[in-house]
Amino acid sequence: MSRFAFRCVLRWSDMDVFGHVNNARFLTLYEEARVALMFAGARAHGLTSFEEGVVISRHEVDYLRPVDYGADVRIELWVEDIRPSRFVIGYELFDGTEVASRARSVCVPFDLAAGRPRRLSDPERAFLEPWRA
Amino acid sequence: MSRFAFRCVLRWSDMDVFGHVNNARFLTLYEEARVALMFAGARAHGLTSFEEGVVISRHEVDYLRPVDYGADVRIELWVEDIRPSRFVIGYELFDGTEVASRARSVCVPFDLAAGRPRRLSDPERAFLEPWRA
Amino acid sequence: MSRFAFRCVLRWSDMDVFGHVNNARFLTLYEEARVALMFAGARAHGLTSFEEGVVISRHEVDYLRPVDYGADVRIELWVEDIRPSRFVIGYELFDGTEVASRARSVCVPFDLAAGRPRRLSDPERAFLEPWRA
Amino acid sequence: MSRFAFRCVLRWSDMDVFGHVNNARFLTLYEEARVALMFAGARAHGLTSFEEGVVISRHEVDYLRPVDYGADVRIELWVEDIRPSRFVIGYELFDGTEVASRARSVCVPFDLAAGRPRRLSDPERAFLEPWRA
Repeated sequence: MSRFAFRCVLRWSDMDVFGHVNNARFLTLYEEARVALMFAGARAHGLTSFEEGVVISRHEVDYLRPVDYGADVRIELWVEDIRPSRFVIGYELFDGTEVASRARSVCVPFDLAAGRPRRLSDPERAFLEPWRA
Repeated sequence: MSRFAFRCVLRWSDMDVFGHVNNARFLTLYEEARVALMFAGARAHGLTSFEEGVVISRHEVDYLRPVDYGADVRIELWVEDIRPSRFVIGYELFDGTEVASRARSVCVPFDLAAGRPRRLSDPERAFLEPWRA
Repeated sequence: MSRFAFRCVLRWSDMDVFGHVNNARFLTLYEEARVALMFAGARAHGLTSFEEGVVISRHEVDYLRPVDYGADVRIELWVEDIRPSRFVIGYELFDGTEVASRARSVCVPFDLAAGRPRRLSDPERAFLEPWRA
Repeated sequence: MSRFAFRCVLRWSDMDVFGHVNNARFLTLYEEARVALMFAGARAHGLTSFEEGVVISRHEVDYLRPVDYGADVRIELWVEDIRPSRFVIGYELFDGTEVASRARSVCVPFDLAAGRPRRLSDPERAFLEPWRA
């Protein structure tokens, strides 16, 4: 098992009126980490099919402690499960050495032209497998 | 049981590069509906303690169908559960007459000055009770 | 002369940590008003060429007074100038009856396929003309 | 004259439906650079008064070329003008070695408690002076 690590640069505008990173904004931070692996990372392996169509069917996010602007944030992610027509990404968001949030996303390969879900291809499965927990 | 209905005005900027409302942005739409009930709605009942401190400990979001800019979006929300020190909001997001997404948020009353969770007060419980499913 | 009026629904998340609508976010509010006229409004006249390519070459925004979440905000916009290959939109953002901000955007019709600016077409000019100040 | 350089990490969500960094989002990128100098940078010199109150009275932004997600973006900023009760920040946003955008912000020191503009203090002026162009 291996985890993909993503250094997350917070923005001042990530804070809401309570002075912490807004809870909804965490999904955008997780999105950046996921995109780094599945779009740019996969493209480096010659795989562009995720970029051309993956939809999210479910997110779960747990918030363990508030994160402040100025925090040193790192997201680690891995693949929790691979099924014929979906896969699950797990994440932990670290503030320094402490886990501040955990999340899980159910991802569905999608044929945008046909407008419907499709099965994972063999190259996609091969790309995901090494990140499996 | 009664549901709180919130008319949701989409923005052009809610779309991502795929041309649909971005999945992370849904949490912001749910936030608007929740804030409308728990901040402005509660204030109308003389209750400002939610505004002074509620933190989110968990979100779950299911995406059933893509939502386009221009859609007629309504969020309905209700209270699923009330415990001594947390409560759960349930939501459905409608695109016209169809449910496009469902979500659930675990909310924790928080004493910002003391920096720790607190118990729900009686007025808070009384405010939430009529929205209970 | 006639002005296009756009009712602007603020979001809780438009506030920054100072508790007012964030100054950068005003450009998003102006964008919504502009899009309402030039995309949806023009489409109602059978004109979709703005949607297919207009780029912004300049924005100017003046901030006259802070705007709070909960404010009743309306944006009025008009066409300040029409040139062969650009046009200028002027805006005023009202908080109730008071002007809280003014802005101006220089818009350039763009041929996305060719990757270069193009001239305004006659139907585009005819659409813009009635909004001219 | 000396310029403050800020490395800008773009997000996938900075793109709009046209596939480039959204024009309104540039103000958020400029904001990050400005905040890095005037809040965190000034704090390192023991100066926290900007954080406690500076309002923006005007922004101007020129867009010279589109910026794509994945671009290597750097913002350079400097102080263009210092007056008794306002100062002007100038910026250039580089995509690699090319200037993709220029901007200017008029900043007004503000007494949040009193609710009105105030004059620049001597330490504030001393902090800004070395960045003057």
